[in-house]
Formats: sequence, C-alpha cells, structure tokens
Amino acid sequence: MKFDFSSRVPQTKDDVVGEILKVAGDPKIISFAGGLPAPELFPVKELKKAAARVFKRNGRDALQYTGSIGNPELRKMIAKHMNKNKHINPDIENICVTTGSEQTIDLTAKMLIDRGDVVLVEKPTYLCALDVFKSYGAKVVGVEMDEDGMKMDDLEEKLKQHPNTKLIYTIPNFQNPTGRTMTEDRRRSLADLAAKYHVMVLEDDPYGEIRFSGTPVPPVKYYDKDGYVIYMNTFSKILAPGMRLGWVIADKDFIKTFVVMKQSADLHSDNLSQYIVAEYMKKNDLDAHVKTISDEYGKRASLMLKEIDEQFPEGVRHSNPEGGMFVWVEIPGNVNTMDLFYKCVEHNVAFVPGEPFYPDEVVPGTFRLNYSNMKDDQIHEGIKRMADAISEMMNK
Amino acid sequence: MKFDFSSRVPQTKDDVVGEILKVAGDPKIISFAGGLPAPELFPVKELKKAAARVFKRNGRDALQYTGSIGNPELRKMIAKHMNKNKHINPDIENICVTTGSEQTIDLTAKMLIDRGDVVLVEKPTYLCALDVFKSYGAKVVGVEMDEDGMKMDDLEEKLKQHPNTKLIYTIPNFQNPTGRTMTEDRRRSLADLAAKYHVMVLEDDPYGEIRFSGTPVPPVKYYDKDGYVIYMNTFSKILAPGMRLGWVIADKDFIKTFVVMKQSADLHSDNLSQYIVAEYMKKNDLDAHVKTISDEYGKRASLMLKEIDEQFPEGVRHSNPEGGMFVWVEIPGNVNTMDLFYKCVEHNVAFVPGEPFYPDEVVPGTFRLNYSNMKDDQIHEGIKRMADAISEMMNK
Repeated sequence: MKFDFSSRVPQTKDDVVGEILKVAGDPKIISFAGGLPAPELFPVKELKKAAARVFKRNGRDALQYTGSIGNPELRKMIAKHMNKNKHINPDIENICVTTGSEQTIDLTAKMLIDRGDVVLVEKPTYLCALDVFKSYGAKVVGVEMDEDGMKMDDLEEKLKQHPNTKLIYTIPNFQNPTGRTMTEDRRRSLADLAAKYHVMVLEDDPYGEIRFSGTPVPPVKYYDKDGYVIYMNTFSKILAPGMRLGWVIADKDFIKTFVVMKQSADLHSDNLSQYIVAEYMKKNDLDAHVKTISDEYGKRASLMLKEIDEQFPEGVRHSNPEGGMFVWVEIPGNVNTMDLFYKCVEHNVAFVPGEPFYPDEVVPGTFRLNYSNMKDDQIHEGIKRMADAISEMMNK
Repeated sequence: MKFDFSSRVPQTKDDVVGEILKVAGDPKIISFAGGLPAPELFPVKELKKAAARVFKRNGRDALQYTGSIGNPELRKMIAKHMNKNKHINPDIENICVTTGSEQTIDLTAKMLIDRGDVVLVEKPTYLCALDVFKSYGAKVVGVEMDEDGMKMDDLEEKLKQHPNTKLIYTIPNFQNPTGRTMTEDRRRSLADLAAKYHVMVLEDDPYGEIRFSGTPVPPVKYYDKDGYVIYMNTFSKILAPGMRLGWVIADKDFIKTFVVMKQSADLHSDNLSQYIVAEYMKKNDLDAHVKTISDEYGKRASLMLKEIDEQFPEGVRHSNPEGGMFVWVEIPGNVNTMDLFYKCVEHNVAFVPGEPFYPDEVVPGTFRLNYSNMKDDQIHEGIKRMADAISEMMNK
C-alpha cells in the first residue's frame, strides 16, 4: 500500500546509515562503524542490585506513572553530578529527565524551529541530529571547524548571513564524528555570540566525561549568563544506553515548556529505570566507573592511532581525540568513501563514510572510526585490513 | 527570559489539566480525576523475579542499544497475545514497540498530518491526543457519538465535508472519557468507510482487555482488508505504566516508515524494560493477571454506579461501561463543570470537567470519573461529597 505521508517524512527511500550498520553487523566483519559503548564495562551486577532494592522498597511507585519532568531523586543526583563534574549548579527545576539524547534534540527542535528557520551546526556533525532538524523543516547550515572546534569568526559570519537562525547545535567535547574538543576561549565566545544575536545554543555533551588525556574544559553553559544555552547529557555512554535516559538543563521557563512538549511525546521517561539509576548513583561511585571506562577507551584510542600511523598510507591525516569514542580520518586525493566502504567490506572491515555527517557540501575522503566497542586484537587486525583497502583505492 | 518558540508550542499559558491534577493530588482530596491503574494490583514480585533473570542471563544485551523496531522476543509475545485476545495475526514485522501510547499517537500524527489537514475524532475524546494533533497543525473535527460509539452516518458526512481528512482517531473499547464501546456493526462500517475514502484509522485500544461484563468485540483492525487501520495498545493498563511500553500494529510498509520516525524520536524504547516484560510474559499468565484487574475494576465500577444512582440528584445521567476505567456523567441544566470542579474541591473531591475532552463545541454539564484507582470506602465517600456539591450548584 502507498501511504500519503506528511512533508516531515524523509522522501528518500535510502537509509544509507541503516544499510551501513546492517552490513557492519555481519559477524565476520570487524566494525568500527557503530557508536556503541563497550558492553563488557557495563556495571551489570551493581545495576542488578539497584533494581532488586527498587522493586523491594519502591516497586509500586516505580511501576506507576510519574511526572513528565522526571523522578525528583534522579534529578537531585544529576544536579550533584553536574556540580561536581561540570561546575554548574542547576536547581532540580532546571532539569528535565529525557528518553535519551535523541529525544532532547527532537523536542528542542520541535519547540524552536518553524519551517525555513536556520540551524547552525559544526561541519561535520552528528548525523541523526541533522535528520531531526530537517524533519521540522529547518534549513541546516554548516559552520567551519578545525582541531579547536567550531570557528567563531565563521559562526558570527553565518549569524549575520542568516538572521532567521533559531539554534546553534554544538558537541564541544570529543565531537561526533571528529573527536575534536572546543577550546575554552571559543566556548566563552560562543556564549557571548548567542547572547549578542539572541540565538539559542543546544550544547550536546554525551562524551564529555569520557576524557583520557588533557585537561577538562567547562561546558559552554558555564559561560552562559542569560539562559541562551540548553545543556544536554545522557547516561548512555557513562552508564548504559539500553535504559534510554538523558537529561536537559536550561532556564526554568524553558524547562516548563519543554515538559509540556515531553508530555505530548511520551508522558514521561521509563520510571523503573529512573528509580534504578538514582539508586545506583546513591550506592555506587559513578565517577569511579566513568574513570574505568575512560582508561579503557584511552588504551583503545592510543592503539588505534598507533596502528593508523603505522599502517595507513602516507598523507592520511587523523584527529587526536583526548576522550570520547571516535577518530576522524582524512585521505588525500578525493577518494569517495562510500566506494571505500564497499572495498573495505570486501576486506571484512567497516566504518561510517563522512558523507552523512555533512549538513551541506561534503568533504571527500573523510570517514569516522569508532574504537570503544572493539578489543585490541580486533583494532590491530581491522586497521590492517583497512590499510590494504585504502592502498588499493589510492593506487587505482 | 522570553523565548521565541515555534508555532507548534501551545500559545496558552494555562495548563488546565495540569492544574486539575495538581489540585486533585492534595492528599485530603478523594480524586476521581486521574486515569491511574490501581498500584496494589501491579505484579511487583513477578516483575522483580523477571528483572533478576534478565540481569543474570542477558544483562549486557538488555543494557546495550537495540533496534528502533523493538526487542524481537517481546514482539513475538505481543503477536501471540494479539492472536489469542484480538483474533488478529500480525507478523513481528507488523509490530513496532513504542514508548507508550502517547508516542504512538505522536509519531503517527507527525507522519500523516501537514498543517491544515483534518483529523476526525469522537466527541468527546482523549484530551492528550487532541493536544498532539494540534501540535502538528491539524484541524480537529468532532464526530457525533452515542452509547454505541462513533456514529457512522455522521462520520461519512464529515468525510464528505472534509476531503483533506488524513486520519480518523477512535478508542472503540470503553472509550476515554465516556466508557462507551463501539458495536461490531459500526466497527465493520468504520473499516469500510476508511477504505472507501482512503483515510487512515488510528485505533487506540488501551482498555480493551479490561472487560468486566458483556461480550468482547473484535478490533476495527480485524475488519481491515487493505491496511488502512493502525492498531495501537499498551502495557500501561494491563501490566504497569511506569515502564512506558506500548505497541503499534500496521501494514509492513507503514511500520518501516514509523521505525524511521521513531529513530529520530528516541532511537528505541527502554531495552531493559522490554526484556523484563518479555520475560514476565514467558513465565507468567498475563491474561490471568488481566482477569484479576478486570474483576476488581468491575466491582469498583458497580459500586460507583450504584452510589451515583442513589446519591446524585434526579436527572443526572451516566454511561454504563462494561470495562475500562471511566464513567461519563451528564448533569441537566447547563452547569459549568469547571465551576463544579472548584465547588467539589471545597468538598475535598475531584474529577475532570468535560471541557478539555471536546475538540470543538463543548457540551456543558459533562465530566469524567475514574474508578480504577480508588478503594470502596473512598468511592462511597467521594460520590457523597460530589452529590452535595452538585445539589448546591443545581439549586443555586
């Protein structure tokens, strides 16, 4: 049957990313394609105990409906966590629990964007965010970036060019897909520019705590005096993604409206999981757990970079992430990385080509590698296979 | 700070329903206002055991990301449940797990409705569905109903009047707010009219299994030959709402696009809870549990109707639900039920006035009572308090 869908539904039948992940899911393929945390590091035992305590003490409450803004205990734990790790001090009225980061992006876009409004994003950026912005009719415009993150001169230029800009979307820490981190100076400038041009900023910080080298930088929200910055984070990378829990921190009036929109989206996030995570945070040291994850990812990142440096052909460049889950690679000579992808699949190794991460013009020869979900021997062997495929492509 | 929200954000600052539920939450008030299942009937012990087994056997998988369409085991259990209880036989490719019914309504509306399109609904209907449809720019038009559900002659009339109708929304079993059930003949007609006018139907069935008298009627989906009916249900009333799990059943091509939209909304529903519910369904008799709930709600409904008949003034009419959670009451003489609400609050009892349930013209003197979440003595005392308040209003 042919359905008469709304204009919000993507017209294209091709789900490029879906196809890539499907191919990459083949068990004989070493996949650097996904963005999955390492499941062997999930604190399964501790969460099991937390769940048992919740069922015993709060079973009926945890299984009943709750408020759209989220469980008060969990919001208290989040406030504490933000204070300790990010130097910002939200009241619990500044915090709404969300059904993961994707929902935070979706509801923020739904709240702010009318058809034709402009959203400014890093070039390249998180591909699912691009889909969401487009689904609300946004014109998405890319802002140049370098190893120090989004370039502030180009941002101001774009703000002048597009007076109907409603939102600046940024991932300042260990950005997806590049692994780059925005400097402190640029963060301060970003907060200032947002206030100067009266444009909201959505600061997406899923990887910020997974730092394995360098010095932490305060979030953009830290420099926000007037409430232009909406800060968002998630338990997906620091605890476990299966429970789909994230949070958003913003001006209380913004949160009030956000809660109304969330009510229409899913009433509230899973209450049982909210209880379990709050209980886990009370009885366990989440920061120590994050340190364990970061150390392991740091080792995997070092190994991957070393293997790239040793095995990839001359002229290949890569980012040097100080945390997070991704390395961004650039190959010289206008290589089409979709073709490279299929070549790599022949060699039983996969990655995500750069193309879907670009909001407008695509920079050829770029792609993203994930190191968090592959063990040492897989990283070694996978990079070797990729090196062979790249050599074949470059010498064609 | 004043935010420049999109046109989707409700302009009004009044959250009437929120206010009502806040007042009704005062512990000294007997509240017939909410739509909460009875928490003392939640199978806490059985779910606790299911959770422990999931953590033990599938901990890492349950805590990891999963596909947007939902856990395959849970979808198998849902298919079996639908076959046994609803006489429809979906493949698991026809089923997508959702983050509760609210999300199913939201995504269906997002997929089908462009600004100005018409949605036809029962008059009155579920108020949160009205909010969702309006948030996508729908013009919502009410269709007349009587004790046998939506009137098919008026539906066809409205379909002719509004050729840009994109969706018919119906709750055929123990409707919210009226408690009324659509007859089998009308269900067949509804499926036929949908096909004749090429309009999709969203069949919302959260209460269908909570039947305590009369004979079950097959869903509208049962009479759907060409894929025009989207069937939706939820674990909120038959198991527990805290886990926010529902499901949608439709044509496979529709589900494919639905999954793309869900991916942009929250990636997937809580995977841990999906594992827990699938495990619960494998090891426990969900239908027997639903029978327990239905028996208890049946007793509470009988008591409430008896008390209404005995205590409410002459001329007051009410629906006679054979299941579900709600009674609909009509008072003679153009009483403003918002005023009645505040009068009742003085008497320490609450309900939801009819007004927010109406898509267009409001029928005065109507309101909704919930009986699922109040014990016998509270029902007796609460109806007495309401009777006093109604007498005062009617004799003013």
